[in-house]
Amino acid sequence: MAETKKDDHTVLVGGKPFMNYVTGVVMQFTTQNAAEVVIKARGKFISRAVDIAEVTTKRFLENTVSTKDIKIDSEEFENKEGKQVRVSTVEITLGKD
Amino acid sequence: MAETKKDDHTVLVGGKPFMNYVTGVVMQFTTQNAAEVVIKARGKFISRAVDIAEVTTKRFLENTVSTKDIKIDSEEFENKEGKQVRVSTVEITLGKD
Repeated sequence: MAETKKDDHTVLVGGKPFMNYVTGVVMQFTTQNAAEVVIKARGKFISRAVDIAEVTTKRFLENTVSTKDIKIDSEEFENKEGKQVRVSTVEITLGKD
Repeated sequence: MAETKKDDHTVLVGGKPFMNYVTGVVMQFTTQNAAEVVIKARGKFISRAVDIAEVTTKRFLENTVSTKDIKIDSEEFENKEGKQVRVSTVEITLGKD
């Protein structure tokens, strides 16, 4: 199952099977009755976060849940070689219609 | 120089070197005096589109240009094997502050 923080209804996207994340999001809306779920991702996983949002809102919870907000940002940090590196982040908020 | 139509100021992200896209966006704001530039991408290039937006707004045109709008969507089409396939898309609108 995808990583979920039950309290704030967040799904952090990583390298697990795609449907784990979709199921995680759908379950939060259905069995946990969340009003909003935030899909978060960094770097190369940003494309996946968009796929998860699209499959959730266009296929599994069509006419029930839609994308309410999308924020992009970036974090700078020092990598192992001491070099300054920037990684982009995304937060996609899905909400009940 | 006069501002040209918004539609002309679009950058479609693909597999070219990263800085080509950043330079393309920056040049549209600077030498072409665009008010807005739209960065479009599909599938795995969505993460890159976010990187391009972040590097443009946080490094090259900080305090001048920022992200104004982000839209996600998806297109369904039939692949070579006749199977229905969905691909996600993104449109990131950058604009002068």
